[in-house]
Amino acid sequence: MKIWLNGGIVDAAKAVDADDRGVTLGDGLFETLAVVDGTPLRFARHVARLTSGAAVLGIPLPVDEALLLQAVREVCAACAVAEGSARVTLLRGPAPRGVLPPEDPAPTLMVTAAPGGVGHARPVRAIVSTCTRRNEQSPLSAVKSTNYLDAILAAKEAQASGADDAVLLNTQGNVAEATAANIFCRFGQDLVTPPVSDGALPGIMRACVLEAETVTERAISADDLCAADEVFLTSSLSIRPVVEIGGQPVGNGETGPVAARLKDLPRRSG
Amino acid sequence: MKIWLNGGIVDAAKAVDADDRGVTLGDGLFETLAVVDGTPLRFARHVARLTSGAAVLGIPLPVDEALLLQAVREVCAACAVAEGSARVTLLRGPAPRGVLPPEDPAPTLMVTAAPGGVGHARPVRAIVSTCTRRNEQSPLSAVKSTNYLDAILAAKEAQASGADDAVLLNTQGNVAEATAANIFCRFGQDLVTPPVSDGALPGIMRACVLEAETVTERAISADDLCAADEVFLTSSLSIRPVVEIGGQPVGNGETGPVAARLKDLPRRSG
Repeated sequence: MKIWLNGGIVDAAKAVDADDRGVTLGDGLFETLAVVDGTPLRFARHVARLTSGAAVLGIPLPVDEALLLQAVREVCAACAVAEGSARVTLLRGPAPRGVLPPEDPAPTLMVTAAPGGVGHARPVRAIVSTCTRRNEQSPLSAVKSTNYLDAILAAKEAQASGADDAVLLNTQGNVAEATAANIFCRFGQDLVTPPVSDGALPGIMRACVLEAETVTERAISADDLCAADEVFLTSSLSIRPVVEIGGQPVGNGETGPVAARLKDLPRRSG
Repeated sequence: MKIWLNGGIVDAAKAVDADDRGVTLGDGLFETLAVVDGTPLRFARHVARLTSGAAVLGIPLPVDEALLLQAVREVCAACAVAEGSARVTLLRGPAPRGVLPPEDPAPTLMVTAAPGGVGHARPVRAIVSTCTRRNEQSPLSAVKSTNYLDAILAAKEAQASGADDAVLLNTQGNVAEATAANIFCRFGQDLVTPPVSDGALPGIMRACVLEAETVTERAISADDLCAADEVFLTSSLSIRPVVEIGGQPVGNGETGPVAARLKDLPRRSG
């Protein structure tokens, strides 16, 4: 597998230093972008979020938007990915042991590409995770960091119970998001999504839905979630209907009208 | 720098695959061990905690205790570390994109060594972190995982305010631990430490102190902390007195009697 790393295309194998803080301390963040016709979609939005997350962590971003776009195009070409996803990962870089970052880090920037359909709308049977909670009291809940273990535990819990994905509650017991997607619920005519302050990552596709529809950002309890007429998950790659939660059908157990009309949104640029 | 990686000594530079989930998702855990006279201390305890954490994450540990001990000795020899620290890191290993781990992971096991004094007792001026909270509602709070960003944010906050370290509160506002150490408080004759259920990592040195002293495990509020007669931090490498919190002296602002009598504990085997 070829990747773009700090300026050029290299093999993914043996590419990263063992003392990179991204390896030792999960000290990094990333973006996953939809790629259609060899072009990353919503690129400026992803760069803005990466820049804002890097500022929270205090990691310098060593390239500008134009250079990063070139890197994405280069790795898509090297991997022959016309449609699929690209991932930009920024790690703090190599450092001696210790929690405090070095004064003058040499960050690791890498870009990978993977083939796959963009805009698929496969229905999701979900559970509400009981094994962990998302920490909305940490600024990290608004950063797409590489600290993904809570989501991994929840995804494993979903798989163990025969489900496709898990919904994470925050420390107050309100709905935050799924393991790698934001969540929307429709109650009658009202479309609702948890606010960022409840632990929802400020997702790019979430922002696109907020622009395309009339949506209220408010807390959603676990009971609310199970009583919704429609539930769907949004990520940069897909908008997927949730047809079942904890073994019970959502609405009539089929794709709802909002998810149906939004399903092509991930393929649109903007 | 030389490291032990999956069976042999290699250079740290370009040692890890870019698609290792330890790099992309912080999907890993580690142990830091004190090394004295070329020998890791409390080795069986560290292996027990690593094994238990790996079980929580569902990462197979590809070696037994004897082989791991040999790896630590080899890397200490390769790096000429007679006294200092060794670190054992277990990552999930390379995998395609996606949150769910592969069914049959090929984990990455690496061991590094660094020189340094064991058992130093440099006094700490601490703050109570206001920028983030430790999530005691996640099982990860009891696992020494590589998801270290909350601690990194708190350490940066401490540095920015001119302090040496930060105390993290949990989501309920009780004291959990410092950025890379457990915390003990003495109120008169009573020695107290937060329970694991409050977000304290089950530290190896914490366990040693619980065996050496009469200690009550109970919740400590931020107000309690500031009113303690003595506060100290424990890690596998050191027991350090906290002489100041948020600019106010702890007790008389000097090393307290319990920290003084325990200071050599990190150098003892057991």
